[in-house]
Amino acid sequence: MSGGEPGDVLIMQAAHARLERELAPWRDALLLMDDAGTVTRATGGAAVRDPRPAGAWYGPDVWYSPAAAAFLDCAHNSPSLRWLQAGTAGVDAAVYAPFLRRGIAVTTSHGFAPGMADQVMAGVLDHWQRGPERRRLRAGGKWQPTPFRELAGSRWLIIGFGAVGREVARRAAAFGAQVTGVARTAGTDALAGRIVPLGALHAELPAADVVILSIALNAATRGMADAAFFAAMKPGATLVNVGRGALVDEGALLDGLARGQPGHAVLDVFVQEPLPSGSPFWTHPAVTMTPHDSWASAGATSNNDATFAANLGRFLAGLPLQGVAVPEDAR
Amino acid sequence: MSGGEPGDVLIMQAAHARLERELAPWRDALLLMDDAGTVTRATGGAAVRDPRPAGAWYGPDVWYSPAAAAFLDCAHNSPSLRWLQAGTAGVDAAVYAPFLRRGIAVTTSHGFAPGMADQVMAGVLDHWQRGPERRRLRAGGKWQPTPFRELAGSRWLIIGFGAVGREVARRAAAFGAQVTGVARTAGTDALAGRIVPLGALHAELPAADVVILSIALNAATRGMADAAFFAAMKPGATLVNVGRGALVDEGALLDGLARGQPGHAVLDVFVQEPLPSGSPFWTHPAVTMTPHDSWASAGATSNNDATFAANLGRFLAGLPLQGVAVPEDAR
Repeated sequence: MSGGEPGDVLIMQAAHARLERELAPWRDALLLMDDAGTVTRATGGAAVRDPRPAGAWYGPDVWYSPAAAAFLDCAHNSPSLRWLQAGTAGVDAAVYAPFLRRGIAVTTSHGFAPGMADQVMAGVLDHWQRGPERRRLRAGGKWQPTPFRELAGSRWLIIGFGAVGREVARRAAAFGAQVTGVARTAGTDALAGRIVPLGALHAELPAADVVILSIALNAATRGMADAAFFAAMKPGATLVNVGRGALVDEGALLDGLARGQPGHAVLDVFVQEPLPSGSPFWTHPAVTMTPHDSWASAGATSNNDATFAANLGRFLAGLPLQGVAVPEDAR
Repeated sequence: MSGGEPGDVLIMQAAHARLERELAPWRDALLLMDDAGTVTRATGGAAVRDPRPAGAWYGPDVWYSPAAAAFLDCAHNSPSLRWLQAGTAGVDAAVYAPFLRRGIAVTTSHGFAPGMADQVMAGVLDHWQRGPERRRLRAGGKWQPTPFRELAGSRWLIIGFGAVGREVARRAAAFGAQVTGVARTAGTDALAGRIVPLGALHAELPAADVVILSIALNAATRGMADAAFFAAMKPGATLVNVGRGALVDEGALLDGLARGQPGHAVLDVFVQEPLPSGSPFWTHPAVTMTPHDSWASAGATSNNDATFAANLGRFLAGLPLQGVAVPEDAR
């Protein structure tokens, strides 16, 4: 299987070293790029000149390699390319746009979802448990109860009911929360009481105690959390953004926080990243912030490896790929 | 219904004021004590001299009243007393012992369970998400990812599979944790993969990533978390005590923490409360502590009111009470 259909698949040598046994069945089709940008076949031999992969795995092994640009060049320049496995759940990053425009099947990776959902729950719980006050009391040596609200009976509006939204829904429901999902179209899902379409969002906001942004960034969702969105929120409600910074109009969010709509924001993503040192989010008392690291869980790598391996097998067998991004999700 | 079977039920006037409508069907049977210790009938009239209630509701309305001692005296001195509704899930407090010795049916209240489980999950998640490090990085203005472990795939050993243990299990399972319950006797429960008997505890400890103490304090469980218990724990595991302080040998816990067995402790309860100002738990970096306030959730009062109302109806109708404590749970 060299040159013909379905073709070779380019991955980083580091990924192959980690997954050699799992990927052994497809070894003949693998092209490996090292950190110097040199490509060899997984079966050995001399460097491959002018590699023309039919598939490529653009995951963290690429992102953090000095050969990242060479890898993308190789994929861009291959006239045979038909598949790109992304390392993320969202494909709004600029890097994916040319592939999507070419009609390449870009498949997403949801291995991050459980860890992301954990970070969401930790952020919401710390606020509802009044964590900062508790830590101040402890630091002051004060034995004084801190009344708190339990999540049971709270209403959650989860905007974007994909892998991340569903993992959040599963957890929130176990706490006794009532979950409403917001998706492109209305529908049903075992993990939500209701799924409403994006157009019905503003009608749902006044009843929600917790609002989660876990939707893909695209032309329809960019800046969706604007002044009107915050004005419609229940006073004191909690907003979580674990999607993309640009889903939120940050000026409108700061205005909203000033009057308690939302009462608190849990933010992992920002319009500009790294967050500029002068940003008020660094020190805002009604904000819990993390540096876009909800992806950084220990299990994500193995989950994403499994996603790639499953699609690799499908690709080489001519079967439909799983998790193909829809063009609307490109920027 | 005055004097005869099943008899009058003594509650605080404050509880009646809060629940007048809900308790209306049983108004004729209610004796109300005010904060001065004066008892009147809910139907009005002069003070009742020598009240002899058949039932009494010893909940937070009593605990925080200046008439607490008078209330207990009235219950103790009533030869007709057959039922005491406790305001807690545990009946190990000294106040319950004389009632249990007399054969009074003491019923427990689990309205606190959802809030307690929320506090447990918040404590575990904050540690697994490396909350203290994240907060230090933020305070220092550092945009630096903090790798963390997701709860998915972790093993939880929940010692005491009553209302609180089951609420914790429900939440942990939704995160993808594998739950083993420890109870008086082996058995099955939809919320646990397995339920093992107390005698099998030490065989389970080495595999557990999270160990929850949510068991009643009694002669068999006092000091159960001792040096041998900690020596059997998986290094780096998380211990949570949301039960009673005396379940733990605190000296052995401090020794265990020093060598990472457990790696972290989330403690809401202590042998001596309030925790003495010199206790190392106030400042221990591997300890998350709260001042025995896992009960202090907003929904607990309404949950516990509902528990009392349901048992009141059963008591006055001669039906079996719900949540009758077993004598082993007395100290």
